[in-house]
Amino acid sequence: MPPRFGPEFQDELTALLAWRRDVRHFRRDPLDEDTVAELMATAQLAPSVGNSQPWRFVRVRSAELRESLAAHADAEVVRAGEAMTDERRATYSSLKLHGMREAPEVIAVFCDDATPIGGGLGAATMPETRRFSVVLAIHTLWLAARAKGLGLGWVSVVKPDYIAGLLDVPQDWRLIALLCLGHPVEPDVVPELERRGWQARLDWRANVSER
Amino acid sequence: MPPRFGPEFQDELTALLAWRRDVRHFRRDPLDEDTVAELMATAQLAPSVGNSQPWRFVRVRSAELRESLAAHADAEVVRAGEAMTDERRATYSSLKLHGMREAPEVIAVFCDDATPIGGGLGAATMPETRRFSVVLAIHTLWLAARAKGLGLGWVSVVKPDYIAGLLDVPQDWRLIALLCLGHPVEPDVVPELERRGWQARLDWRANVSER
Repeated sequence: MPPRFGPEFQDELTALLAWRRDVRHFRRDPLDEDTVAELMATAQLAPSVGNSQPWRFVRVRSAELRESLAAHADAEVVRAGEAMTDERRATYSSLKLHGMREAPEVIAVFCDDATPIGGGLGAATMPETRRFSVVLAIHTLWLAARAKGLGLGWVSVVKPDYIAGLLDVPQDWRLIALLCLGHPVEPDVVPELERRGWQARLDWRANVSER
Repeated sequence: MPPRFGPEFQDELTALLAWRRDVRHFRRDPLDEDTVAELMATAQLAPSVGNSQPWRFVRVRSAELRESLAAHADAEVVRAGEAMTDERRATYSSLKLHGMREAPEVIAVFCDDATPIGGGLGAATMPETRRFSVVLAIHTLWLAARAKGLGLGWVSVVKPDYIAGLLDVPQDWRLIALLCLGHPVEPDVVPELERRGWQARLDWRANVSER
């Protein structure tokens, strides 16, 4: 029998979506293996084009590789700041953009652009939907983690080819995200970028039109 | 005070993720405007790179435009089938790949690749993260809809430029998805592509490795 999701669940789901955050401040205590496995299994429930399941999760366990990733992100964050206006740069420099040195789990997520799974269905005119499928799996993991009181941070100021080389993944794998996962220092309902004066959330009506 | 999501909610969330489907069979009864507005407002809670909120939802209300979209998708579905192996094509031809003629709501979702919102933060090395943000908003809408007993279908066998032209959107908007939204004919816990013998879900362990 299909489940019916009642009003209480719907309200709690909205609270989950509202309290999901992109977390950059992590406590260092480790996650237990069962929790990580459960989150990975849940991510596998994500939708994917043609049911191609092209997400490839690479857990970074080596301290050396983690430090290389963090140093690379630091350098790219500085470089990205150089292109900003002076006004923006002052705020930008004060932001913490990743927690890769503290989070107990660092996970690189790739898309296998060449997977035969799913027989190419749905991707003929928009092959980018394979990469979009990986994003859907990341969001699934993100929400499941938040429901357990955990935080996830998506680090994007990195060069995909550099990360792919460093982690020595197959040629057809494209980096989609570098994730930090762990206990957040402090949950908050307002995005950090809004609290720090970078960018507030807009009214949804601004993004909806009709034809 | 931050909410605590208990084990019951976590189980219900997993059920939601398991029962979310890519729906192609819709009843024709309309959605009320409050429901649509609530779903759009919930989608606005999605994460986005630099809080750039680059999603642009275009509700297709015109019957003529809807028919043009459906006819375009039909033609592209046939064309995509021509590239498949004979074995695959027999199953492929029997699949229903969109419900654009029945669903009460058809929504085209675009990414504003040129939005100044968010000041470019996080997108310096991976500008595709703006489009990924739109995918996150779509997934948020998807889950919120399913929690209300509604179904969403993502139609991807279309040409983005054709859709953008047909719907006359700004030059910098890129199509991410064409969505159908409405009451599903019949909820199911198994993906339609799996039930119809196209592609089953794999064990999650196949997609996880370590470095």
